Amino acid sequence: MNTITLAELAASIGAEVVGDSSRSVSGPASLAEAGPDEVSFLAQPRYRSQLDSTRAAAVVVAADLEVEGLREDLVLLRCEDPNAAFTRVIRAFVPAEAEPAVGVHPSAVIEAGAEVDPTASVGPLCHVAAGAKVGPRTRLVSRVSLGPHAEVGADSVLFAGVVLYERVVLGARCIVHAGSVLGSDGYGFEPSPEGWVKVPQCGTVIVEDDVEVGANVTVDRARFGATRICRGVKIDNLVHIAHNVVVGENALLVAQVGVSGSTRVGPWAILGGKVGVAGHLDIGQGARVGGGSDVFTDVPAGTDFLGSPARERMQTLRAQASARKVPKVIEDLRGLRAQNEALIARLETLEAAAGLTNQPSGDPGHGGPA
Amino acid sequence: MNTITLAELAASIGAEVVGDSSRSVSGPASLAEAGPDEVSFLAQPRYRSQLDSTRAAAVVVAADLEVEGLREDLVLLRCEDPNAAFTRVIRAFVPAEAEPAVGVHPSAVIEAGAEVDPTASVGPLCHVAAGAKVGPRTRLVSRVSLGPHAEVGADSVLFAGVVLYERVVLGARCIVHAGSVLGSDGYGFEPSPEGWVKVPQCGTVIVEDDVEVGANVTVDRARFGATRICRGVKIDNLVHIAHNVVVGENALLVAQVGVSGSTRVGPWAILGGKVGVAGHLDIGQGARVGGGSDVFTDVPAGTDFLGSPARERMQTLRAQASARKVPKVIEDLRGLRAQNEALIARLETLEAAAGLTNQPSGDPGHGGPA
Amino acid sequence: MNTITLAELAASIGAEVVGDSSRSVSGPASLAEAGPDEVSFLAQPRYRSQLDSTRAAAVVVAADLEVEGLREDLVLLRCEDPNAAFTRVIRAFVPAEAEPAVGVHPSAVIEAGAEVDPTASVGPLCHVAAGAKVGPRTRLVSRVSLGPHAEVGADSVLFAGVVLYERVVLGARCIVHAGSVLGSDGYGFEPSPEGWVKVPQCGTVIVEDDVEVGANVTVDRARFGATRICRGVKIDNLVHIAHNVVVGENALLVAQVGVSGSTRVGPWAILGGKVGVAGHLDIGQGARVGGGSDVFTDVPAGTDFLGSPARERMQTLRAQASARKVPKVIEDLRGLRAQNEALIARLETLEAAAGLTNQPSGDPGHGGPA
Repeated sequence: MNTITLAELAASIGAEVVGDSSRSVSGPASLAEAGPDEVSFLAQPRYRSQLDSTRAAAVVVAADLEVEGLREDLVLLRCEDPNAAFTRVIRAFVPAEAEPAVGVHPSAVIEAGAEVDPTASVGPLCHVAAGAKVGPRTRLVSRVSLGPHAEVGADSVLFAGVVLYERVVLGARCIVHAGSVLGSDGYGFEPSPEGWVKVPQCGTVIVEDDVEVGANVTVDRARFGATRICRGVKIDNLVHIAHNVVVGENALLVAQVGVSGSTRVGPWAILGGKVGVAGHLDIGQGARVGGGSDVFTDVPAGTDFLGSPARERMQTLRAQASARKVPKVIEDLRGLRAQNEALIARLETLEAAAGLTNQPSGDPGHGGPA
Repeated sequence: MNTITLAELAASIGAEVVGDSSRSVSGPASLAEAGPDEVSFLAQPRYRSQLDSTRAAAVVVAADLEVEGLREDLVLLRCEDPNAAFTRVIRAFVPAEAEPAVGVHPSAVIEAGAEVDPTASVGPLCHVAAGAKVGPRTRLVSRVSLGPHAEVGADSVLFAGVVLYERVVLGARCIVHAGSVLGSDGYGFEPSPEGWVKVPQCGTVIVEDDVEVGANVTVDRARFGATRICRGVKIDNLVHIAHNVVVGENALLVAQVGVSGSTRVGPWAILGGKVGVAGHLDIGQGARVGGGSDVFTDVPAGTDFLGSPARERMQTLRAQASARKVPKVIEDLRGLRAQNEALIARLETLEAAAGLTNQPSGDPGHGGPA
Repeated sequence: MNTITLAELAASIGAEVVGDSSRSVSGPASLAEAGPDEVSFLAQPRYRSQLDSTRAAAVVVAADLEVEGLREDLVLLRCEDPNAAFTRVIRAFVPAEAEPAVGVHPSAVIEAGAEVDPTASVGPLCHVAAGAKVGPRTRLVSRVSLGPHAEVGADSVLFAGVVLYERVVLGARCIVHAGSVLGSDGYGFEPSPEGWVKVPQCGTVIVEDDVEVGANVTVDRARFGATRICRGVKIDNLVHIAHNVVVGENALLVAQVGVSGSTRVGPWAILGGKVGVAGHLDIGQGARVGGGSDVFTDVPAGTDFLGSPARERMQTLRAQASARKVPKVIEDLRGLRAQNEALIARLETLEAAAGLTNQPSGDPGHGGPA
């Protein structure tokens, strides 16, 4: 790793140095794990106590942090948003990546009729089928399979084991992590007395530019037309996207999300980890669905949904809070019932004393004996 | 794509043409995306308004659809079930697949003692271990691994990256999508003071005929005996099936389902997306479990379960509806309490007026002063 | 399979033979599937009736099982814990595995600068990048990819399709099942008006010794520092572990678990199938979280959590039980309301009889006309 002085680092991240700015650091680390030549950060107050024990040379902290009693030689880098600033710290230390070897590794299989740009890098043991295209500067790291007529644009990276089925299209500047599968058949069957009959899945998958796909993700090809992942979408690991789904620009799908067939996820929507969405629904632009939710209805644009079944977040939180009160409700109800019995007894006593007959039915107050 | 006249298409799907039946179409598309040489369909009333704006040449619609005000040259193909009919439309346009090259690709590794049928196709970079068998006309698309003594029947297709561990058996006419793993060890460990001790997983996986397995699925080998996927089962992407599970004929397991060890899923049962089933349970024949449910009990044959924990669908829906009433219940209870206080006060006034003493305890009505 | 006499088998598992101990058996099987030369077991009373119909030669049963009316020639192997004893039965029949060929398969690609121990086995179509290391007796089964400077310790097994990204470290005696990915980028993006900007993920993944990882698992590399899987951890299939997570020694993560970024899972903790855990949380040592739960809070050491959102198991079970009473509560409330109306009517009658005016407001009992 390269080393950087704290003065340089502070300048590059926009922080004010409190302490010896001439010291050098060699990389970022957490408060608990940092050594004496590393820089750390404090973004969440819950970790405040770790400031007292950290061995870090310097810590990125909030501009207004109280720092009484800290180690004398601990340098502080004060700034408005320590979390965002620390991302800049990390960037400052990103090692220059080894340039991948341009060209086709001798162990890769390129079928006749495939077009690999001369500036592309096709790593060991990849398979590029007939009619497939690999764009300029794109990198197939190793063991990648491109099916017949699959296309990858410029400046994309496909990690080990990625599979693009026949005719799938992936745009420019995309990253697809290891083991992900784009273009497997959608899940469609029709019942018959002998068993399920496969509904042909004749469409494809289109992934636009600037999309990142995590590891072991699956995106199914459309029944017809295309399953579409729009520009700038970021998909985490082990996500499932069914046939004919459209994921709008810059939507985020956190790990283990599942989206059922023909559902549309709006631009800038965020589906939290493990969210499941039923088929043929609309998740509106900028909608947010909390982790673990199961969505069975449309989600209006800009709203915040949560729960199983998912409803507006505040509704769900209120429902959860009131559910916790049910035991108390049952107890109160029992108390009221006992109270009423006592009241009835007292009424009867009064009625007897007044010589009145109890009126058991519907309209007791009217027409009774006066 | 080939083109078909609407008269021919209508005949092949059993629809009545309303409009110019001599026009030709080149493929299926959704209402929103169809061009002027494509055919679309309207299955759900919620998309009715798209009929007004579609550029499609023709639309498959229900026999009784009201069509006032539609574009004059829009041809209608009327039939009883537009959704089913459209599947036939799609079939009519399925492109003839290129015949895969029969034989073993030179980059594939076939170990001594493996038996590959001469009519089979073993694609680039596959590995077939000693003792493994590949049946007639079966196709290993690319980068498929068959472990020692694994067997694949006739007419099956295994896509890129599929792994069959040692001794796993896959039947005839099966489809296994990319990245799926059949035969990894079941998850079994015994505690010891030093840590968990592995319980050997000596069984295997048997997949019968006509099974389709989605992408990145995992099916674990049995502790002993076999994890069994029976004839006609259809498994969606990212499903997990644990050791010693038996999935009965024609059962459907939708994406991201997880079935724990030794559970039996009955024939024709349907587990919706993301359903989790605990171990050692019976899911009865034809039972249906709604998406997102967590099953901790047996599910009787023919029933419809839903929820976490899963119960009969109607029970769960009723419980959800009544849960939504709890805030109102709490409010009503408060009202009743206030009302009772007022009643007590009025009673006390009456009792005082009548010269009666309030009886605070158990049996207030009897033995009080008359 | 080898055969063993029941006398030998009973001695090796610590059971008492009731019946002909000279008979031989050739392997373990379930009660339903066992043939006349196999041995089975009865661990759960719910399968008791299968004892009457099993064709097994012998059955491992509890020491105190009532066995009236069983087949005369059915041999019983009595012991304290039939389930644990049967694991020993299975071990007795584990076939000796074929020794994997030591050395590098000619189809594997080993880049210059990689170090493969001469006792290691690198199978067909593997890729070992520059700077990567493979320890003594370790086995890369087939189609395994080790990225630049990735390291695997001694005596580990990596099955087909496993991917270790750049610099990932895997310890000794580890097992990683097919399709698992260690070291893909953590999921981190910062918003900008043009879309999400990738936060560099510069850290790595460290997997300590004696860890088993199931099939198609994903473990993301850290933003900086390391995502760490400690000694003895056992991870089931399709589990997702996000960046900077630490999983403590001997923790168990059952299938389809998802752990969000920076969360710490304590030693010996157990997360049941499909559990989701939010980010930046602490799951305490020895804590247990029931299958299907969604965890949004810390889980104290040694506790048992369940539900969505997860709370203490007993709290959740009680809440579920009281939730089932809500319809009855609503009914009771309706009854009380009706009762109160009747009471009010009777009060009014009494008040009228007594010449008292009803006091409708706040403080009805005081200051009313006497």
